[in-house]
Amino acid sequence: MDATPRRILGIDPGLNITGYGILEFQPLKPRVCEAGVVRGEGKELPQRILSIHQGVAEILEQYRPQVMVVEQLYSHYAHPRTAILMGHARGAIYLAAAQHGVDVVSYSATRIKKTVTGSGRASKEQVQATIQRELGLAQLPEPPDVADALAGALCHYFSIRLG
Amino acid sequence: MDATPRRILGIDPGLNITGYGILEFQPLKPRVCEAGVVRGEGKELPQRILSIHQGVAEILEQYRPQVMVVEQLYSHYAHPRTAILMGHARGAIYLAAAQHGVDVVSYSATRIKKTVTGSGRASKEQVQATIQRELGLAQLPEPPDVADALAGALCHYFSIRLG
Repeated sequence: MDATPRRILGIDPGLNITGYGILEFQPLKPRVCEAGVVRGEGKELPQRILSIHQGVAEILEQYRPQVMVVEQLYSHYAHPRTAILMGHARGAIYLAAAQHGVDVVSYSATRIKKTVTGSGRASKEQVQATIQRELGLAQLPEPPDVADALAGALCHYFSIRLG
Repeated sequence: MDATPRRILGIDPGLNITGYGILEFQPLKPRVCEAGVVRGEGKELPQRILSIHQGVAEILEQYRPQVMVVEQLYSHYAHPRTAILMGHARGAIYLAAAQHGVDVVSYSATRIKKTVTGSGRASKEQVQATIQRELGLAQLPEPPDVADALAGALCHYFSIRLG
């Protein structure tokens, strides 16, 4: 991997909505190349996982990022069942990365928020506002999953830039 | 899906060891067609998920079961982080099923144990011994993940046979 990858894909995994955002770094400062959501379509779990895997695979093929950034697992969750279901989505996303030879890096949610907003306890709204300002977006990134995905990508960018 | 599928694949998902067992029903009573484990190879999570997905996909291609049986999620886990990691393996396995057009059915751990051994609180050793006896195996199914996978498949068999 280059010291500074040309494209970083941030992913915020979820079985309903998976946010994604691709940052690009040439020629100058980071800009959003593409961002949006992949939806887990279908009532049954296997179908939803399939649509997430397909959506992420398409993003990897179209934009060819050098690295994928996913938020680290916490050690404690308020809703374990929801967290395990999220784990299913994460499994399909990690699989897509491995199938495309894309490295995956993880940062804790606190680290991402602190790096991007200055506060490890920033709210979703603060993350959205900061991402809009820092990346010069015309609109607030919506839903918050998109802002979280871009925040992960931006955190990785700062991390490798500042070493 | 036929009233009685010809082959039922039971899966006990795990990031280290995923047990599997295929039951076959023609011409007479259920017999073990194949059973074993798929190992999550590699240090990094994406690589391990990739090897689980590949292993399960190979089983689906080689044995062409009509249905996959996976234990239901609990609502409470003693070790949420381990459970979420298991969720990653489960995601890759559900994905393989969807990609091969194989239906997935789930039963609670209690239901599987009760159906197979008569007790919803049976120990791993009891499940192993019962599976060995019921399916006429020459040896105790090892590791216990293989017995759990076969127990899931057998539970589904009884469920559709007895309605």
